[in-house]
Amino acid sequence: MQSLTVHLHDFIRDVRLTEEEWNTAIEFLTRVGHITDDKRQEFVLLSDTLGASMQTIAVNNEAYKDATEATVFGPFFVDDAPEVELGGDISFGAKGQPAWIEGTVTDTDGRPVPNARIEVWECDEDGFYDVQYDDDRTMARAHLYTDEHGEYRFWGLTPVPYPIPHDGPVGKMLAATGRSPIRAAHLHFMVTAPEHRTLVTHIFVEGDPQLEIGDSVFGVKDSLIKRFDEQPADTPTPDGRDLGDETWAKARFDIVLAPADA
Amino acid sequence: MQSLTVHLHDFIRDVRLTEEEWNTAIEFLTRVGHITDDKRQEFVLLSDTLGASMQTIAVNNEAYKDATEATVFGPFFVDDAPEVELGGDISFGAKGQPAWIEGTVTDTDGRPVPNARIEVWECDEDGFYDVQYDDDRTMARAHLYTDEHGEYRFWGLTPVPYPIPHDGPVGKMLAATGRSPIRAAHLHFMVTAPEHRTLVTHIFVEGDPQLEIGDSVFGVKDSLIKRFDEQPADTPTPDGRDLGDETWAKARFDIVLAPADA
Ligand SMILES: [Fe+2]
Ligand SMILES: [Fe+2]
Repeated sequence: MQSLTVHLHDFIRDVRLTEEEWNTAIEFLTRVGHITDDKRQEFVLLSDTLGASMQTIAVNNEAYKDATEATVFGPFFVDDAPEVELGGDISFGAKGQPAWIEGTVTDTDGRPVPNARIEVWECDEDGFYDVQYDDDRTMARAHLYTDEHGEYRFWGLTPVPYPIPHDGPVGKMLAATGRSPIRAAHLHFMVTAPEHRTLVTHIFVEGDPQLEIGDSVFGVKDSLIKRFDEQPADTPTPDGRDLGDETWAKARFDIVLAPADA
Repeated sequence: MQSLTVHLHDFIRDVRLTEEEWNTAIEFLTRVGHITDDKRQEFVLLSDTLGASMQTIAVNNEAYKDATEATVFGPFFVDDAPEVELGGDISFGAKGQPAWIEGTVTDTDGRPVPNARIEVWECDEDGFYDVQYDDDRTMARAHLYTDEHGEYRFWGLTPVPYPIPHDGPVGKMLAATGRSPIRAAHLHFMVTAPEHRTLVTHIFVEGDPQLEIGDSVFGVKDSLIKRFDEQPADTPTPDGRDLGDETWAKARFDIVLAPADA
């Protein structure tokens, strides 16, 4: 509380906050409060778009050797996503370009981490997560486990950019400051294994123009940008799956977990 | 926005905000938003109790020579309070010890300011402003004008301490940090005159124990603490008013206005 008030007062002095600006701030926060309900969390959007969420991630996930970097958790994780076998399809019918994603989970000494639990979730090609539809569907999310060599592989979707909800006060703030509500295309990962630090992260898509424009929640780190190599239709798939005349993509994400006590 | 985010991020780094603390902050702000309605403004209470309102007052009302110091406006001002003549009674039947308040309004060169408009408002002896009752009463508030010598005088009530509304999240925050919700006893003034800076201030009551405990919104300035001299019953009143066997108090508040362009 002491640090909070010191920084708050420093801010007011630095900008010489006018009484009109103070009023505007009170009204803005009131609108943020009133649009927030069980389904919509505008304070989280505000924290995200001010970079406060990412800064909190940063102080709680200090760099450790070459461990994979963390990024924002986001509001769309669901606790009880279904399990898929290695090589299974997490899309469960969600629309989008199929993407084969594979990699390893190792520790910072290069030793494989078998049986690591990997949660993955992403939006469909229309930019919506399953939970944003009204029909209780479960799509484009699952968990799976690494094999005895620390390897994993699954079918998902090539990520696409999507806007954070921007029809409320946070959307107005973004518009007023000339900022895009769009998040760079990404696929969420959460990786847990005993004796290792839990990793919450994304991978981003090399070549996504939104990477240049800017991710609306500041989640991008260079080390998390991965190639999604598009394969012409009829290219044989790694597991022999027949995709007909669909193109598909291939990506690799090797994950390095810090020790729990790092 | 840039300064806001810099200070916000500095705060998160300084305290090494945990993800649990971040969650608690989101929940706290959500509760502040949900208790706020047309009658209850918990964000203003939050700003007040963090000293942010007082800090905003400070940067917008810089000290100028011996001009009277400003303090918080508070949520209980009403725009169309009745006018009273000089020497009139602003209590309109509100309960409390009668207090005769008099003084002058001058500029910083000591010249009287005639016809300055003085708004005064205060709570009753139970600690409630008229607007906190459900019955549309108008009591313990009025406006009046200085005479040609810049002098003013009126009957009001000896101020008493009162709690800010503390049955919501801000009250919980005060309790958690061992702070009192009580405001030191005060009488609100707003003084306007052409070519002078509008003054929003209070006077506090010398000897009020809450001055030692601390005012919950940090509004006290030493220069604003005034003697309310209690007079034994039967002491003749300045205007000959007969108060029967009631005691009454006498206070003096000489007001100095800064120029509008100070
Ligand atoms: Fe996302
Ligand atoms: Fe007050």
